[in-house]
Amino acid sequence: MLGWTISDWQTAYNNGDTPATLLPRLLDSLQKDDVAWISLINQPYLDAQLQALEARRKSLPDLSSLPLYGVPFAAKDNIDVGGIRTTAACPEFAYIPTQHATVIQRLLDAGAIVIGKTNLDQFATGLVGIRSPYGAVPNSFDPEYVSGGSSSGSASVVARGLVAFSLGTDTAGSGRVPAGLNNIVGLKPTVGAISGRGVVPACRTLDCVSIFATTVADAELVFQQASGFDEADGYSRARPDHVMTSLPAKPRFGIPAQPEFYGDAQSEQAYAQALARIKETGAECIPLDFSLFDQVTTLLYDGPWVAERYAAIETFAKEHADAIHPVVRDIIFRAKEFSAADTFNAQYKLADLKRQADKILASVDALLVPTAPTHYKISDVAADPIRRNSHMGKYTNFVNLLNWCALAVPANFRSDGLPFGLTLIGPAWSDHALAAFGKQCQALTALPRGATKQPFIAPNASPVISGPAAGHLRLAVVGAHLTGMPLNRELTERHAVLVESTQTSDSYRLYALAQTVPPKPGLARSENGAPIIVELWDIPLAAFGSFVAGVPAPLGIGTLELSDGRQVKGFICEPYALESAQDITAYGGWRAYCNKAA
Amino acid sequence: MLGWTISDWQTAYNNGDTPATLLPRLLDSLQKDDVAWISLINQPYLDAQLQALEARRKSLPDLSSLPLYGVPFAAKDNIDVGGIRTTAACPEFAYIPTQHATVIQRLLDAGAIVIGKTNLDQFATGLVGIRSPYGAVPNSFDPEYVSGGSSSGSASVVARGLVAFSLGTDTAGSGRVPAGLNNIVGLKPTVGAISGRGVVPACRTLDCVSIFATTVADAELVFQQASGFDEADGYSRARPDHVMTSLPAKPRFGIPAQPEFYGDAQSEQAYAQALARIKETGAECIPLDFSLFDQVTTLLYDGPWVAERYAAIETFAKEHADAIHPVVRDIIFRAKEFSAADTFNAQYKLADLKRQADKILASVDALLVPTAPTHYKISDVAADPIRRNSHMGKYTNFVNLLNWCALAVPANFRSDGLPFGLTLIGPAWSDHALAAFGKQCQALTALPRGATKQPFIAPNASPVISGPAAGHLRLAVVGAHLTGMPLNRELTERHAVLVESTQTSDSYRLYALAQTVPPKPGLARSENGAPIIVELWDIPLAAFGSFVAGVPAPLGIGTLELSDGRQVKGFICEPYALESAQDITAYGGWRAYCNKAA
Repeated sequence: MLGWTISDWQTAYNNGDTPATLLPRLLDSLQKDDVAWISLINQPYLDAQLQALEARRKSLPDLSSLPLYGVPFAAKDNIDVGGIRTTAACPEFAYIPTQHATVIQRLLDAGAIVIGKTNLDQFATGLVGIRSPYGAVPNSFDPEYVSGGSSSGSASVVARGLVAFSLGTDTAGSGRVPAGLNNIVGLKPTVGAISGRGVVPACRTLDCVSIFATTVADAELVFQQASGFDEADGYSRARPDHVMTSLPAKPRFGIPAQPEFYGDAQSEQAYAQALARIKETGAECIPLDFSLFDQVTTLLYDGPWVAERYAAIETFAKEHADAIHPVVRDIIFRAKEFSAADTFNAQYKLADLKRQADKILASVDALLVPTAPTHYKISDVAADPIRRNSHMGKYTNFVNLLNWCALAVPANFRSDGLPFGLTLIGPAWSDHALAAFGKQCQALTALPRGATKQPFIAPNASPVISGPAAGHLRLAVVGAHLTGMPLNRELTERHAVLVESTQTSDSYRLYALAQTVPPKPGLARSENGAPIIVELWDIPLAAFGSFVAGVPAPLGIGTLELSDGRQVKGFICEPYALESAQDITAYGGWRAYCNKAA
Repeated sequence: MLGWTISDWQTAYNNGDTPATLLPRLLDSLQKDDVAWISLINQPYLDAQLQALEARRKSLPDLSSLPLYGVPFAAKDNIDVGGIRTTAACPEFAYIPTQHATVIQRLLDAGAIVIGKTNLDQFATGLVGIRSPYGAVPNSFDPEYVSGGSSSGSASVVARGLVAFSLGTDTAGSGRVPAGLNNIVGLKPTVGAISGRGVVPACRTLDCVSIFATTVADAELVFQQASGFDEADGYSRARPDHVMTSLPAKPRFGIPAQPEFYGDAQSEQAYAQALARIKETGAECIPLDFSLFDQVTTLLYDGPWVAERYAAIETFAKEHADAIHPVVRDIIFRAKEFSAADTFNAQYKLADLKRQADKILASVDALLVPTAPTHYKISDVAADPIRRNSHMGKYTNFVNLLNWCALAVPANFRSDGLPFGLTLIGPAWSDHALAAFGKQCQALTALPRGATKQPFIAPNASPVISGPAAGHLRLAVVGAHLTGMPLNRELTERHAVLVESTQTSDSYRLYALAQTVPPKPGLARSENGAPIIVELWDIPLAAFGSFVAGVPAPLGIGTLELSDGRQVKGFICEPYALESAQDITAYGGWRAYCNKAA
């Protein structure tokens, strides 16, 4: 079970293993004194989850609505798991929640099993993983080095393969820096995509629940299950009907014109090598001036947002200041320096900076930056706790303030054996587009997963396509809209994507319509028919209306039956036009007819 | 020229008058000691505008790109007009801007001529119009009463017909309350729809430039010219591609279950009469609990947003506290009581309240409230300046915090001769939908315009329907989607609007399809056909894709020809299904067939 991906767990269950046999063994194997854990569930808590899971499974026709069936995961200890103490890495602050956080409930509803709560920089304040009374979490590759934080434990347990995935939180990089330092994937979603209800806030206007996994595919699957509008969270946001699902085939990436590694030649070299490899795929890397993003970071570090951290624990902080980690306390108590007017002034400044930053981002398809600029030893950070912590956030700090999303992916290894990661940054709701490219990156580098030494196995290049992507409609085209044909641009202009070339059922006849410009066929159902070649395109639903509006008589959009029985939208034809048309069914498709005719 | 609407000005110019002859006469007629003005332009400033306008006119083929050609307007004196002193009603604060505010530049670009700057509650802090060292602006109907504020002068000069329209600003009601108290229209747009660059902020996160006119049509025309994304304003927002352009034919309005008039029986009676009249048109008025909106108002009055007013003038306030109107100073200086943490806590609270408020608003088509609950005498407000001011904002305060828009329209007159106004409130970007209903209201009441005693003349009641509204598609339905038929909700759920009942050309045959549920007809072109009754619906293009997706075989969406030759999208049918269908062409339409069959 060590190092299993989600699909490894699914395979095991398909082969006859059960959660009731595997998961108690997994729980037994975990070390309670592992500094990455703050708490592990006990056997009765696991039994209760297993019973609830089996009851749900029995009530369902099959496992398709339990995509995380029996998959174990861990949650950062600032996310409520009902009945388990939430500490936020401050034992005096701890409480036992009666309810699960919304994100935990969603994952349990998808069949996942929560195994334990993980260590963190106290109150999620830090990017290093050593600001915790529960101990410093070591890097999974070299215990002298920091794991990164604040989601230190969640990154560590995934990197070492103890669980298939874990939840972190990310306000200024806490879901990305530890991914980069531990050779795993860190998905920092669009702000508000995953509910924050039941999460101890750091900066509530910026906080995101984040996901760690060893593959982008796993992280994306978890994101799909974990995300969704939550009426109970004022900062939750509904996913728009239409979101970007891919980058262009040859994307243009903005990279820092003057990358900063704080003197670390190994990371500098790793970044250059990683970019060179990405460029080989045809991507373009365009150096951009990042100084505006640095201004955003300065606003965060020197501005009033620290008061959100104070507001989150105000009563506790007033009564138990001594119980707070001294470095964390010094940071949080700076809140008192800021007035309401300071806060509004900083928010105005941010609005103006965001306007400019969005323009920079819009000039490329995404940003491509080092996840973290360097690796520090635990002793280095202890000696200079504020400055070296801030270095870690060089390429992460500005993202949430700008309402962008990001995906950290493993890139390569430095000559000293420590991992180096890249982060893709895109606008709000580009999560799936970043993941699509992230999967390509991971297939390209095929690094061992996390610190498990287990190989990365690229998923089947042609996965079974079960249906259109969310917000899309699957359309069968048969004539002038086929790839390379004159009207194909009506699809590509609308960002439709070709997903499959296939055939209709054998109940169709194909006709070449008279006097159509460009020449077009008409398709008609017939008991005496044949299969006709069609292409299936996924078109954004919002763009489909204008596509239909542009279809001229005698054609229209109706419903077609495919050879495998699927029903999809597709071109139909008014009967009057078939009377004067030539029956070309024998060609089996429009392209063959055109080629013969030419 | 007194009391001319925009179309009156256009008519005059079409009949041979010119801006160069009319506008100097207008300027001469204005009284410099009118307390509504803080400054009037001088003759050379007018000449410069006239020359620039004529130069532009000559460079253009016709006047169609100058929709406000030669129309005089006024701007509240917190909006920069280049070269004219901006005072914000505080002479010690005044400065001479070198540039126009974006909104002024846009209006000049559309051909309008700025005539003067108007009085206001100092720093736009007030809803009464008496907090100004330039004097209290009297109500246009009775000088003992307040004009309302803070855009007091802008409302007064429009109500008295001195200019065709004016600009105000609105943070908590300043663009609506004075409209209600002076029998004019006040359009408070969606936050960010009109740029705030070059406007002295009150609360920058809430401020809106607003529009006064004597007709909704004029206000909407000015809004169209004044609005637009401005990169230079961090709070400017781009209009979405698809916006609501009308309310349903019989709208459902949310009204306060327990309306508050602070003991004013005349306003209470006027409101009841106004609602009764609206209900006669078929609209429904649904009493709602408004206590949640009161909570939002309390946040604004007792919370940290006052610090925005302080932040806007911080340096000046520190150095010249004595120069600030004492009532305004007391309000603004309360900013010092609020910390950064207070600010974030209040913003969290607002986010949670907005979540609930949006649900309430979504349960109806719009809110319909008194614009102001009562009329106060100037002496009443002077005696109790804070409390009576806050009463004025009962139905306006919460709107901007909730990111909603609003339109104040004249409703009727109380028995004492003072005007009473209604305000429509809708979600962001419903500006045009509110205006569409506002025009109906104004046609219904046909009150004299402002205080001019000039009649309201409704524009052509049945405008020629030339095509679907922007962002919409016109669809002909023939069967189960007709009004009252089982699938009609598939249109109404998508906010489609019935625009016409008409017929196809005489080239169609209608069939009752076998085995369809609910029963459906199929339409087929035929040389031997007849006209078939159809309904034309305008459906938002963004919602059309999902509509088409839901159309089952054998039906589809193609192109139909109407009796007047128009081509519209409409239902077509696959030929195979007609073979087993019953020809019902003789009925002339599906409804007649169903009635006969029943």
